[in-house]
Amino acid sequence: MPRRDRLTVNDVHGAWAIIPTPAVDNAEDWRCEDSIDYDEVAKAVDGLIVGGVDAIMAQGTFGEGATITWEEKKKMMSVMVETARGRKPIFVGVTTLNTRDTIKQLKHARDIGADGTMLGLPMWQVCDVPNAVRFYRDVAEAVPEMAICVYANPEAFKFQFPTPFWAGVAEIPQVITCKYIHIGQLSIHTAVTKKRIRFLPIEFDHLDAARIDPEFHTAFWSPCANGGPEMTIRIRDTVKEAVKTGDWSTALRVWGAAAPVMGHLMPPGGFPEFSRYNIQLDKARINASGWMKAGPCRPPYLTAPANYLEGAVKAGKGWAELCAKVRAGEL
Amino acid sequence: MPRRDRLTVNDVHGAWAIIPTPAVDNAEDWRCEDSIDYDEVAKAVDGLIVGGVDAIMAQGTFGEGATITWEEKKKMMSVMVETARGRKPIFVGVTTLNTRDTIKQLKHARDIGADGTMLGLPMWQVCDVPNAVRFYRDVAEAVPEMAICVYANPEAFKFQFPTPFWAGVAEIPQVITCKYIHIGQLSIHTAVTKKRIRFLPIEFDHLDAARIDPEFHTAFWSPCANGGPEMTIRIRDTVKEAVKTGDWSTALRVWGAAAPVMGHLMPPGGFPEFSRYNIQLDKARINASGWMKAGPCRPPYLTAPANYLEGAVKAGKGWAELCAKVRAGEL
Amino acid sequence: MPRRDRLTVNDVHGAWAIIPTPAVDNAEDWRCEDSIDYDEVAKAVDGLIVGGVDAIMAQGTFGEGATITWEEKKKMMSVMVETARGRKPIFVGVTTLNTRDTIKQLKHARDIGADGTMLGLPMWQVCDVPNAVRFYRDVAEAVPEMAICVYANPEAFKFQFPTPFWAGVAEIPQVITCKYIHIGQLSIHTAVTKKRIRFLPIEFDHLDAARIDPEFHTAFWSPCANGGPEMTIRIRDTVKEAVKTGDWSTALRVWGAAAPVMGHLMPPGGFPEFSRYNIQLDKARINASGWMKAGPCRPPYLTAPANYLEGAVKAGKGWAELCAKVRAGEL
Amino acid sequence: MPRRDRLTVNDVHGAWAIIPTPAVDNAEDWRCEDSIDYDEVAKAVDGLIVGGVDAIMAQGTFGEGATITWEEKKKMMSVMVETARGRKPIFVGVTTLNTRDTIKQLKHARDIGADGTMLGLPMWQVCDVPNAVRFYRDVAEAVPEMAICVYANPEAFKFQFPTPFWAGVAEIPQVITCKYIHIGQLSIHTAVTKKRIRFLPIEFDHLDAARIDPEFHTAFWSPCANGGPEMTIRIRDTVKEAVKTGDWSTALRVWGAAAPVMGHLMPPGGFPEFSRYNIQLDKARINASGWMKAGPCRPPYLTAPANYLEGAVKAGKGWAELCAKVRAGEL
Repeated sequence: MPRRDRLTVNDVHGAWAIIPTPAVDNAEDWRCEDSIDYDEVAKAVDGLIVGGVDAIMAQGTFGEGATITWEEKKKMMSVMVETARGRKPIFVGVTTLNTRDTIKQLKHARDIGADGTMLGLPMWQVCDVPNAVRFYRDVAEAVPEMAICVYANPEAFKFQFPTPFWAGVAEIPQVITCKYIHIGQLSIHTAVTKKRIRFLPIEFDHLDAARIDPEFHTAFWSPCANGGPEMTIRIRDTVKEAVKTGDWSTALRVWGAAAPVMGHLMPPGGFPEFSRYNIQLDKARINASGWMKAGPCRPPYLTAPANYLEGAVKAGKGWAELCAKVRAGEL
Repeated sequence: MPRRDRLTVNDVHGAWAIIPTPAVDNAEDWRCEDSIDYDEVAKAVDGLIVGGVDAIMAQGTFGEGATITWEEKKKMMSVMVETARGRKPIFVGVTTLNTRDTIKQLKHARDIGADGTMLGLPMWQVCDVPNAVRFYRDVAEAVPEMAICVYANPEAFKFQFPTPFWAGVAEIPQVITCKYIHIGQLSIHTAVTKKRIRFLPIEFDHLDAARIDPEFHTAFWSPCANGGPEMTIRIRDTVKEAVKTGDWSTALRVWGAAAPVMGHLMPPGGFPEFSRYNIQLDKARINASGWMKAGPCRPPYLTAPANYLEGAVKAGKGWAELCAKVRAGEL
Repeated sequence: MPRRDRLTVNDVHGAWAIIPTPAVDNAEDWRCEDSIDYDEVAKAVDGLIVGGVDAIMAQGTFGEGATITWEEKKKMMSVMVETARGRKPIFVGVTTLNTRDTIKQLKHARDIGADGTMLGLPMWQVCDVPNAVRFYRDVAEAVPEMAICVYANPEAFKFQFPTPFWAGVAEIPQVITCKYIHIGQLSIHTAVTKKRIRFLPIEFDHLDAARIDPEFHTAFWSPCANGGPEMTIRIRDTVKEAVKTGDWSTALRVWGAAAPVMGHLMPPGGFPEFSRYNIQLDKARINASGWMKAGPCRPPYLTAPANYLEGAVKAGKGWAELCAKVRAGEL
Repeated sequence: MPRRDRLTVNDVHGAWAIIPTPAVDNAEDWRCEDSIDYDEVAKAVDGLIVGGVDAIMAQGTFGEGATITWEEKKKMMSVMVETARGRKPIFVGVTTLNTRDTIKQLKHARDIGADGTMLGLPMWQVCDVPNAVRFYRDVAEAVPEMAICVYANPEAFKFQFPTPFWAGVAEIPQVITCKYIHIGQLSIHTAVTKKRIRFLPIEFDHLDAARIDPEFHTAFWSPCANGGPEMTIRIRDTVKEAVKTGDWSTALRVWGAAAPVMGHLMPPGGFPEFSRYNIQLDKARINASGWMKAGPCRPPYLTAPANYLEGAVKAGKGWAELCAKVRAGEL
């Protein structure tokens, strides 16, 4: 299959689902050499595409980009690309501890046919704005064929992603989108980046982003489609319909059903506390939803407080119920 | 003047301006016993009301609620209330180090005729959610006649103001509004509070909040009206007009002129770094705008890095220019 | 009683006990107007002096300097000074939200005969080094008769107390000592302050400080004497004896008995997590020890996680047992 | 050369020098495939051993463990081991983003003849105490032949390394030492680890640690020997002599000369601020000292504020002057 042109900001639309890296039963054990359940990877990628998502991203935080080996990641990337067969863009995670390792991984991803990368900052030491912008510029310069989705997680990468950073990376043509935490500064960031970057709010913020600017904010990232794509697609489509008709009532009803269910995932301390157990909680949520088998966690991020895990399970089961309602035409 | 009924969430609309506490020339000196320029307080309150704002709040962070004495604050409150003469609601700051001092100050504010308080959490020790909710409940129980605007500043008050906090304070009838940092979780917080609290985004986010829910998000707080109310009123009115007509182009143009000007206020490190010098930077901004005399800072928050102060001055001057354009009918 | 000369660094020796502010039964209620059990204050001050401590400090963090009113604090200061009758120095807490309120309180403390103050930084906004040093200089200039113990708590006061700060405050003659968190930089801070400030390590670090420099490090602060002074005095005296004889075995045995007992006070997250519940945990500890009645907490810092409180109770009971052993000559 | 037995806590003595990873001229460029100046590695390792250090550690923070590739690290490890020829222990850095990558690297290090590892925690997500202890246990179980030096840097690894952590890892026989930030809790950590772990304070704290417990605290880590080993050896030997004779005056004089010189390395904000530019500042320091060529930094950690770098250069030059004085018998 010939390589398609690099994706542009105009290719970023709809539901960008993020998948976990499914784990075999003994993945908690350091002896496990190949911890990935590749069949489940293929099943999930195909299921999401058939289910209607618009792109698939992987190897982020709950995607255990931190805890899978390079050998495993290479195989998983290939399974993803081969399963997708060009039907939808595949963005792989190549966040590492430095610029050159990231470039090496991204070149490989390019060579096997991935479309882009969801890419966070090296996090051993804190980056300041000049070093952070240069990181993305270096990577883009080294692998110009690949599109970049900035992975803007302040807790993981020890970086606030302030406005001057966005002004800087907007000058890099490869940077076309961003996995975004919340929409608190969406308009200012959209303005300083001159609409060269389409930010992806989380699916629960898509409704609001679309109300802010329905023409530009047409895409979002989904942490939950891996618990059943129906509800994610329902969010996308009801918003699209609302934008067309001007009647937001159905979109609001769908959002109103989804938001409290996912609220169970968040510990009382909010996002900083959630971030301490992000992997463990999201995998518990996905496993509880039953749509795919995320399996156990990989070392060293194995256990979490019991009450936090209970909330995650509640969120996963609730999402599955929402999907069932969508399938039944009840939502 | 008989006391009017306690304000409700339905009374929260339009531009809620926050004023600094104007300082006399030697206010930096600990020997200064009465550091407030009360004439300037009266002038600012009257000027803002005549200029069109919908409410006035004071004694927050750049309002130096931390660094004025109780004797000074009492006098300033009286000047504010007497100047306003019931034309617009006056919300005073009674954040202290504990529940009982706050109650004492709030009772006094009630007795002299203030309408409500912009109230942050005691900040020597961190509050968790149960203690934080109880703080607001205790204060409301002690002074039920006063409306409360939660002052949700995470850096000042060492508290993340997570979703369960909002669910808790929404049960308190006195809590009707909130000075809010950004709109990152506006919809979820609006939902869990069942529209009992009208959150006030900063004036630069008002446009977006109105696009998210034009019927409910009708109010905002303004840090900048003290640099000239014309631009703040212009923001309010162009958004109102856009909501009515469905044509957002003028509102967007106004926002597009304002946002980059105020961007100069923010150091490269973003909000956490800004918070380290909030008072010094905002007073430099206000003084540079020339609309009112904020005067020097009070001890101990006196100096700031020169390049940060330069940005603040640029923001203040830019705002004054925007106001001039509004007056000239050019914006 | 004529005012004695201001204390100097040469007057700082031995065990500096910190007391809580004993609370009456309904002190958790905001309606409580005078929440202090003054009899218990007097009993504790007298008991500690008779028990052998070398100075008494109050109104810090677990001393609820944050949550008592100025009226209460004035009365408590007087009870402390009158009970001490010059037998031992009394250092009161006058940490407030700003320079001028602190000066006002410190002048009062001077007038009623207190010897000095344990003084932290205003904490609404972060201080940088120049503003922090100026704060202490301003206070010393305003009330030159009073000795100052810098209260160096980074969590409470949002300040790291770095080396340049110490170089700065060492130029202020009133600054003679410091309530210090740990001895991690004791020698460098002692060097840059040219021995003008005698740092007070916590009693569990006194042994180490004395081994580092037995001639200079002769003093420490005690959070635990309020749970029974015998053990604190035993720590002081066995160290003094070791310095004299060169035989550290008894001092080491005493330390070895004390350290694990107090380890129960600390939650798994270490000092930052402890600081979130400092007041609640220390009061639970003191109440469990039974030597004095600290009573309930004052609003808003009322509740804490149950397992943290259990650890605090264990620490308090363990300390009481150690004191009993000392009295029985078994330790 | 047959593998020697695993080092034990009894083998940890003296000056443990940490080296940077010397970089070739174009190492700042992502195109640079092999960025290490191996001749300089060999020269530094030999120079330090000949100069008298007791062990050499590498690939930590300023050792750019984050920013060198695995291919480079393997070669550097071999050069280190081959240059050392068993004369002194070699501890390499195998900190990665997860347990299994660390194990893979550590097995390789074992196979080429390294003695142990200086090992930090995976840092994408925060570890809590159970997951952190299990990380070290897993690694030790997988590569039991290798000694472990816990790399206890709270800023780099997002972990406070609280007391319960030390109690946990003390049960792992491979954990014999620790690169330690400061001696604030040295005695309590030594107690809970039952002297199974010999903590390495920084060379500036060695004097104090030796005064606390001269029999046990016989070792330290040196960030500065790479700027000339003479001064490090002088610190070690004057302390050793003081322990023997009881006369600490020379050791104190040497410390008094060294401490202010290295103070220049620390920005005003203290350790957290230093940590933001640790690599850039330490490499600037080493290059300024002139003893070895650390070369430029590797991406993405390239630039730092000019005034911070000036301080680092001052520290490096000052250290070189101290070494010259030692050689001249003047210190």
